[in-house]
Amino acid sequence: MNTQEIANKLVEACRTGKSHEMQTELYSENAVSWEQEGGNFDVKTEGLAGIRKKGEQWQSMVEEIHSSEISDPIVAGNHFSCRMAYEVTMKNVGKIQMEEIAVYEVNDGKIVSERFFYPTAPQK
Amino acid sequence: MNTQEIANKLVEACRTGKSHEMQTELYSENAVSWEQEGGNFDVKTEGLAGIRKKGEQWQSMVEEIHSSEISDPIVAGNHFSCRMAYEVTMKNVGKIQMEEIAVYEVNDGKIVSERFFYPTAPQK
Repeated sequence: MNTQEIANKLVEACRTGKSHEMQTELYSENAVSWEQEGGNFDVKTEGLAGIRKKGEQWQSMVEEIHSSEISDPIVAGNHFSCRMAYEVTMKNVGKIQMEEIAVYEVNDGKIVSERFFYPTAPQK
Repeated sequence: MNTQEIANKLVEACRTGKSHEMQTELYSENAVSWEQEGGNFDVKTEGLAGIRKKGEQWQSMVEEIHSSEISDPIVAGNHFSCRMAYEVTMKNVGKIQMEEIAVYEVNDGKIVSERFFYPTAPQK
């Protein structure tokens, strides 16, 4: 699959809540996941097993996902980007709105990195 | 200006070849610019003066810009992303096609970081 095809498949999987099932098909075993500094997760997670574990950690923090909205991807070369927005109730926190820009890197027909951008400090 | 307004202004400036003129208005003096490892530029450039210098370095490598295409931005929280594609003739290299995903971070009404994603290794 080329970058556009992988982007379409991943976005479709995220929209239908099947992104975890699609990881085996779409991700390299050596994929790396990057988070913002100052957030809830390790900045760098190496390997698909670790990425799955992070997904489970996230799910364990969520009480309910009320809605989600994933934009169409924009594709440039071997990267693509999309907007992800969620309304979720987090355990012990309550209902929050989350928005992030996700950037994915593709090589040899697989996602080799994902990187998420969101606020981690109070915004002025 | 909020993130959407800054995104619109920057994209418009890039489309009309006026991004350098707009830096004073849109960028924080302490903005940080990130490039890919293995490319032509330093991975991290700190400060608007350094970012301007990098822009001049880039311009000095270019013989002619034949066309450019900047996508509409996608905005999430304090970040926005767009696709930039260029057909350029580089000095001593010849005509090339370039595409990248750019991600910008906004705080207090200014761009505080920019990050560019493009291939740096041979793609399989």
